[in-house]
Amino acid sequence: MWEEINMIKIYTLGGYEEVGKNMTAVEYNGEVVIVDMGIRLDRVLIHEDVEFQKMSSKDLRKLGAIPDDRPIRNKKVVAIALSHGHLDHIGAVGKLAPHYPDVPIYGTPYTIRLAKSEIKGEEYFEVTNPLYETNYGEIVQVSENLAIEFVQITHSIPQSSIVVIHTPEGAVVYACDYKFDNNHPYGERPDYKRLKELGKEGVKVLIAESTRVAEETKTPSEAVAKMLLEDFFLYEGMEADGLIATTFASHIARLQELIEIANKMGRQAIFIGRSLAKYTGIAKQLGLIKMKGSRVLRSPNAVSKVLKEVSQARENYLLIVTGHQGEPGAILTRMANGELYDIGPRDTVVFSAGVIPNPLNVAQRYALETKLRMKGVRMIKNLHVSGHASKEDHRYLIRMLNPEYIVPAHGEFRMLTHYAELAEEEGYMIGKEVFISRNGHVVEIPGSLEG
Amino acid sequence: MWEEINMIKIYTLGGYEEVGKNMTAVEYNGEVVIVDMGIRLDRVLIHEDVEFQKMSSKDLRKLGAIPDDRPIRNKKVVAIALSHGHLDHIGAVGKLAPHYPDVPIYGTPYTIRLAKSEIKGEEYFEVTNPLYETNYGEIVQVSENLAIEFVQITHSIPQSSIVVIHTPEGAVVYACDYKFDNNHPYGERPDYKRLKELGKEGVKVLIAESTRVAEETKTPSEAVAKMLLEDFFLYEGMEADGLIATTFASHIARLQELIEIANKMGRQAIFIGRSLAKYTGIAKQLGLIKMKGSRVLRSPNAVSKVLKEVSQARENYLLIVTGHQGEPGAILTRMANGELYDIGPRDTVVFSAGVIPNPLNVAQRYALETKLRMKGVRMIKNLHVSGHASKEDHRYLIRMLNPEYIVPAHGEFRMLTHYAELAEEEGYMIGKEVFISRNGHVVEIPGSLEG
Amino acid sequence: MWEEINMIKIYTLGGYEEVGKNMTAVEYNGEVVIVDMGIRLDRVLIHEDVEFQKMSSKDLRKLGAIPDDRPIRNKKVVAIALSHGHLDHIGAVGKLAPHYPDVPIYGTPYTIRLAKSEIKGEEYFEVTNPLYETNYGEIVQVSENLAIEFVQITHSIPQSSIVVIHTPEGAVVYACDYKFDNNHPYGERPDYKRLKELGKEGVKVLIAESTRVAEETKTPSEAVAKMLLEDFFLYEGMEADGLIATTFASHIARLQELIEIANKMGRQAIFIGRSLAKYTGIAKQLGLIKMKGSRVLRSPNAVSKVLKEVSQARENYLLIVTGHQGEPGAILTRMANGELYDIGPRDTVVFSAGVIPNPLNVAQRYALETKLRMKGVRMIKNLHVSGHASKEDHRYLIRMLNPEYIVPAHGEFRMLTHYAELAEEEGYMIGKEVFISRNGHVVEIPGSLEG
Amino acid sequence: MWEEINMIKIYTLGGYEEVGKNMTAVEYNGEVVIVDMGIRLDRVLIHEDVEFQKMSSKDLRKLGAIPDDRPIRNKKVVAIALSHGHLDHIGAVGKLAPHYPDVPIYGTPYTIRLAKSEIKGEEYFEVTNPLYETNYGEIVQVSENLAIEFVQITHSIPQSSIVVIHTPEGAVVYACDYKFDNNHPYGERPDYKRLKELGKEGVKVLIAESTRVAEETKTPSEAVAKMLLEDFFLYEGMEADGLIATTFASHIARLQELIEIANKMGRQAIFIGRSLAKYTGIAKQLGLIKMKGSRVLRSPNAVSKVLKEVSQARENYLLIVTGHQGEPGAILTRMANGELYDIGPRDTVVFSAGVIPNPLNVAQRYALETKLRMKGVRMIKNLHVSGHASKEDHRYLIRMLNPEYIVPAHGEFRMLTHYAELAEEEGYMIGKEVFISRNGHVVEIPGSLEG
Repeated sequence: MWEEINMIKIYTLGGYEEVGKNMTAVEYNGEVVIVDMGIRLDRVLIHEDVEFQKMSSKDLRKLGAIPDDRPIRNKKVVAIALSHGHLDHIGAVGKLAPHYPDVPIYGTPYTIRLAKSEIKGEEYFEVTNPLYETNYGEIVQVSENLAIEFVQITHSIPQSSIVVIHTPEGAVVYACDYKFDNNHPYGERPDYKRLKELGKEGVKVLIAESTRVAEETKTPSEAVAKMLLEDFFLYEGMEADGLIATTFASHIARLQELIEIANKMGRQAIFIGRSLAKYTGIAKQLGLIKMKGSRVLRSPNAVSKVLKEVSQARENYLLIVTGHQGEPGAILTRMANGELYDIGPRDTVVFSAGVIPNPLNVAQRYALETKLRMKGVRMIKNLHVSGHASKEDHRYLIRMLNPEYIVPAHGEFRMLTHYAELAEEEGYMIGKEVFISRNGHVVEIPGSLEG
Repeated sequence: MWEEINMIKIYTLGGYEEVGKNMTAVEYNGEVVIVDMGIRLDRVLIHEDVEFQKMSSKDLRKLGAIPDDRPIRNKKVVAIALSHGHLDHIGAVGKLAPHYPDVPIYGTPYTIRLAKSEIKGEEYFEVTNPLYETNYGEIVQVSENLAIEFVQITHSIPQSSIVVIHTPEGAVVYACDYKFDNNHPYGERPDYKRLKELGKEGVKVLIAESTRVAEETKTPSEAVAKMLLEDFFLYEGMEADGLIATTFASHIARLQELIEIANKMGRQAIFIGRSLAKYTGIAKQLGLIKMKGSRVLRSPNAVSKVLKEVSQARENYLLIVTGHQGEPGAILTRMANGELYDIGPRDTVVFSAGVIPNPLNVAQRYALETKLRMKGVRMIKNLHVSGHASKEDHRYLIRMLNPEYIVPAHGEFRMLTHYAELAEEEGYMIGKEVFISRNGHVVEIPGSLEG
Repeated sequence: MWEEINMIKIYTLGGYEEVGKNMTAVEYNGEVVIVDMGIRLDRVLIHEDVEFQKMSSKDLRKLGAIPDDRPIRNKKVVAIALSHGHLDHIGAVGKLAPHYPDVPIYGTPYTIRLAKSEIKGEEYFEVTNPLYETNYGEIVQVSENLAIEFVQITHSIPQSSIVVIHTPEGAVVYACDYKFDNNHPYGERPDYKRLKELGKEGVKVLIAESTRVAEETKTPSEAVAKMLLEDFFLYEGMEADGLIATTFASHIARLQELIEIANKMGRQAIFIGRSLAKYTGIAKQLGLIKMKGSRVLRSPNAVSKVLKEVSQARENYLLIVTGHQGEPGAILTRMANGELYDIGPRDTVVFSAGVIPNPLNVAQRYALETKLRMKGVRMIKNLHVSGHASKEDHRYLIRMLNPEYIVPAHGEFRMLTHYAELAEEEGYMIGKEVFISRNGHVVEIPGSLEG
Repeated sequence: MWEEINMIKIYTLGGYEEVGKNMTAVEYNGEVVIVDMGIRLDRVLIHEDVEFQKMSSKDLRKLGAIPDDRPIRNKKVVAIALSHGHLDHIGAVGKLAPHYPDVPIYGTPYTIRLAKSEIKGEEYFEVTNPLYETNYGEIVQVSENLAIEFVQITHSIPQSSIVVIHTPEGAVVYACDYKFDNNHPYGERPDYKRLKELGKEGVKVLIAESTRVAEETKTPSEAVAKMLLEDFFLYEGMEADGLIATTFASHIARLQELIEIANKMGRQAIFIGRSLAKYTGIAKQLGLIKMKGSRVLRSPNAVSKVLKEVSQARENYLLIVTGHQGEPGAILTRMANGELYDIGPRDTVVFSAGVIPNPLNVAQRYALETKLRMKGVRMIKNLHVSGHASKEDHRYLIRMLNPEYIVPAHGEFRMLTHYAELAEEEGYMIGKEVFISRNGHVVEIPGSLEG
């Protein structure tokens, strides 16, 4: 009886069968905190003529593009926490938050501003939830029993967090999308101190990403990516003519590195592409990026005019463009199609990004590279490091937090099982203390008998 | 001097850097025989809005979609030989034959009729070349010095041939797209006798496909594919509800097997999809397929009407449809998109085809399978065998023909080098007797000094 | 209370983290039936100087070479059932059966005779358990509540079975190592009728192998392997000089095919290698193989004498030898090392076996092939089909048996999860009705409340 | 006529069909310079009971373990140049230099001292060739027409060089085993200035390694490896108990990094393993490593005594041991076998090395890891960067040198063809200007007509 009341239920709503559309809900004594509301872009991509922003949550759910939140629809939701600003974590806010009308949404400032941008673009629903920018370290009491906290962590977007839901039974720690970067070039650091404290206070459940747990190493620091870029640009690159870099628009640290490199090279960094403008714009508001020496092109006119100038004096510029995955409509994709700029043998394209291993993506990137190669463009790939923890980082997190139970998340079944094997190495018993769940299932964590 | 006159030049125009757009030309004493004029579909696929049939050869060449025949444009071409009817061997006939206005085109009857169909569809050029149906064994004298011959061989389309160009210096044997099938269910057989004779008469050059030479085995007979299909359909399949098979439209033997299976099951085989209608239609004219018990749907009205009936009584039919690679617009692709037929959990789709390992193709097939899986459709894959020779078949061909020189063809560089390694095992010296060429290069085979 | 008594416990002792050392125990109301006692050879291989037959079960357990049966050591074991004669299913009988001194061992005749051979070789323990040859269809009552039954199935060794443990709560069906072969050349057939009956009677738990469940097809019949062999030997092989085939010594059907092929070729089949002598010897006793026209060499003297004759007239023989995986000491391995026979360019080695994908094995096979290649030996690989069910076979079994619960077995974690995904497609809920277990864990199946 | 005299012949003796046993000879006007004499270890490994040092060159040649130098045995060899000290470049000096008695051997000091060590160990031959330590920049006239030069380059061993053979027809540049490291932690730098000068002076032939040319990136600096190590050791490692690192014994920079890390951690670095003692010993003589704070164990007694101490106070030491590939007899391998040290759950093993992708090696490493995992040892893999140039480094070298002809080397056929494709991108014609050769072949470079 007591046990039932004290039970913690983990609703694994999305991201437990894929990398994408992350959504998890934590219930304690009838109250629910939702963490993340993401989209799964590849499920949109396989269908033609999908206009995401105009579609209902029901239709998108059927496509598998957003999480199916029906298991918690009628629950008493007291808060929505957003861990960080990537679309697979916040991209469905405009579609799903309206299901919980007055429930407040919390996140770090950069995350919240990106969520607002998503909500602004939403065309099907009206979103009325209040949004609150929360700082690392604040503990926000969201009900009598529950509080949430954002612990500083490093990832490939600024102000990422490990989300903690404090319950009377102990903390539920949601660590999806993080790495332990001890040498981040702009000073971001994992808050090991707080993580160790949490471990001492008592962690009931750890919900951890499993995306790269099969890599039996420690994920390299962003400082390594910076060095890879400098190693090319500041040496051989000094002799190059046209230089074009492409990376994730939300990866502000990477963009900062590119600006600094351009400055060192005596070139002007020019950002082209809508999402680059969006993410750098918000980052600038918050003082997260120094744009000095660079320029952001917003209007099609500006793009067309400036690129004409660039093509006359390529050696003066470092173009930073969208399209690293060959996305249709992105700047690099359009260049490869012969639009905007006469890209050719005088240009070098630096991919500061890996290839996302989804067949549709692989095909788009293949088409992009094929076209660039046919035009004689030089390409340099993989000047990049991942933002996701590897096996040995995960082990360290487990050792710091010493959780009673573990729920692997953020991955396909195969990835979740790899995480479970790590947990087993650390002494957890599969099926008793570490639970592999599926989208739509509930993991029930027994509470203390004393209540 | 004599040597120059007697020299044989092999123009490796297409298919030497890819699997696709095959075209080779053989010159002796100023006269040229062209073998095959194929297209490379994936180069069309990566560009949007390409209307193949309305485009010029120049534009298609720039896309890399058809061979660049400029090295032989001003040569005295005396004949065009087509080895078999696949599009990567005949698909550019409408675009390139017009460059050689009165030059006759030869091939086996099925090949020639398919080439005529290509020419009929051509919208940019007018094609005036005469086409001749040639039988296995005929030796066609195409100039004083040169004759061509089509030797019977087995492949995944009827009436495939190994093409022989007889020159005063010995035979040039073009063996692109073949397998040695000793148990073909409909009696097709490799003409080992003639191949061995050619070996004794003296083969100067062997031009051989390298597509599957890395497989260190012997390619299974089509009888194996037949058994794989029967093993499912005639046992477990007898208990199934809706049954849909998909395979290569030009694979007449496979289609014949499916008709026979449907007959044995007491179901009606229904062919749906334009290319199925085309290939079976021509095959029927030539008596290459027995359609008894089956039906071919041609008009959109018929398709829509019949599929409505089928969905009411699935257990009475075996649908045979296009779309095994997820091609846009193909019947299975449309079904997966929710068109034409309410495909769902009651249906089983049998893929009697592998996945062609090109990223664009992999993505289309992935999208197809994802959609079918989301609809609850059961899928059975790979009830299929390849039509291409494996390493040990190639070894046998070399031993039978005992050529002086070898030019690997029909593959990426990597595949050509695998073939060269086989040739080396058989005693040929790379760079001296076996030549790895590139599109647009010429391999010069020294002639006899006696002249 | 009632529930506890009626609960079925599945002890997943071995084979739930690997392909190897299979052992499962089923407990009902305090009584236990053990199914299989296998070894894991690669755990022996990574250690030098391991003398398996002289070692204690404790030491072997520590190496991970045999299952850890401690969870059931003090239970009331009423029977040991052996599903079939492969070493990963019976190889630890000599080590573990002694832990259960008078407990009878059941299996089909071929299985039991192979188990006896294992016991005979055992040097550390004395094994006193009675062994009973049981026929398909017999239901053996092993206690008041429990009975066992061996259902005929096809695999790559004769007289394989699906083992059924009948309990008052319904049947527990153990289907580890099977395929559905509808065209087996020697008439073995899956007993679909009995499987469907069991489905109707009520199957409580299905324990199914997951080794090849990731292959989204139906496993080909042994008739396909036969055709692959005939396609080479009876055509191109007729022109060959020395011919050497190698396959699994326990694969009696395959060996029978080779004998028939030799007879058709007018060659004498000669079996060389200890394990070939063992398995064919027992098969012959039971009338499972017709050795007519063949010869089995047993003594080293005979081997050396006969191989000398063979090397003088290679065209008269088909050697069938051990060593398809490059095992140290096997005949083919020794030949490759320059012993026994002057293997060279006149010889063709046919591998009628795949490469077992364990790194140690891959290395041994690589060393074998490298040596053979350096001697100029021709090799033809993969004239083989698997003995394990693929995904669509597994689906069919689930549909026939309609079990309440499923426990995937016989594979690494990753394979078990693939099976679980199949079960999910068939409507089972992971964690509720399909359980992924680990070596040493117990799966508890709730019993009926009525008791 | 003139052409013949001026022709340069490149004898591609070893390393053109494998990564291993590198040997190339350059002939001009009857005089020959040999570059490198390496061994192929995996060809030794597949045979048991091979005692390398006691065997003749003939027997080793037959095993494929050393190059077959017969094509140049009777030539007038004027010099032997060694590019760097790895065994696949100098390991056969003891076996092959005796074929050219009195011919002087040149190399950088570290290379020559390692060659001397090889010669000292040689037990079959007596080696009488004089050895000369040569500095970067020196041009050594080795005959009237020919001179050799060692250009500074970076790789994974100190004092690596690009070897230049100056001929009257221009330079032959041998760039096998190099990377462009612009941030090497100990100041080693590629001599770009000299390379560009050579390009201007006129490079006739470039012989370049192709080992990693398929990687479409720039190889990371050794500074990245240093950062990967520091990122683990100086953060999480500070909380660890036993720490064991393993890397290539010849990788002096990596070892220096580990010493510095140990010093920063307040631990003593202890080197254990014969090859570590050898390589660090010679490096120390030449001032290439600062061993301060570290200790090298040489005698078995010392090893056993010290490891006993270490196991009592693990937190005080950083063990640096041999065995990163699981080599039999290496220290880590022995520890995994339960010898020398009670390695277990308190220890972390850091692999600062990748897995060399040869099946035998993969198997040894697999066995090592399996044993360590069974003992509960934590492993962190791949804290490592490669020492080999990637595609974009190779492109840069081609652009700097602007050679007339290119001969890809140091790789399997497949790798050589990848290099040829790069050369084709840079405007070279395969078969005319870039030549894929095989072991034992000769590439003939036409000389100038003017002579």
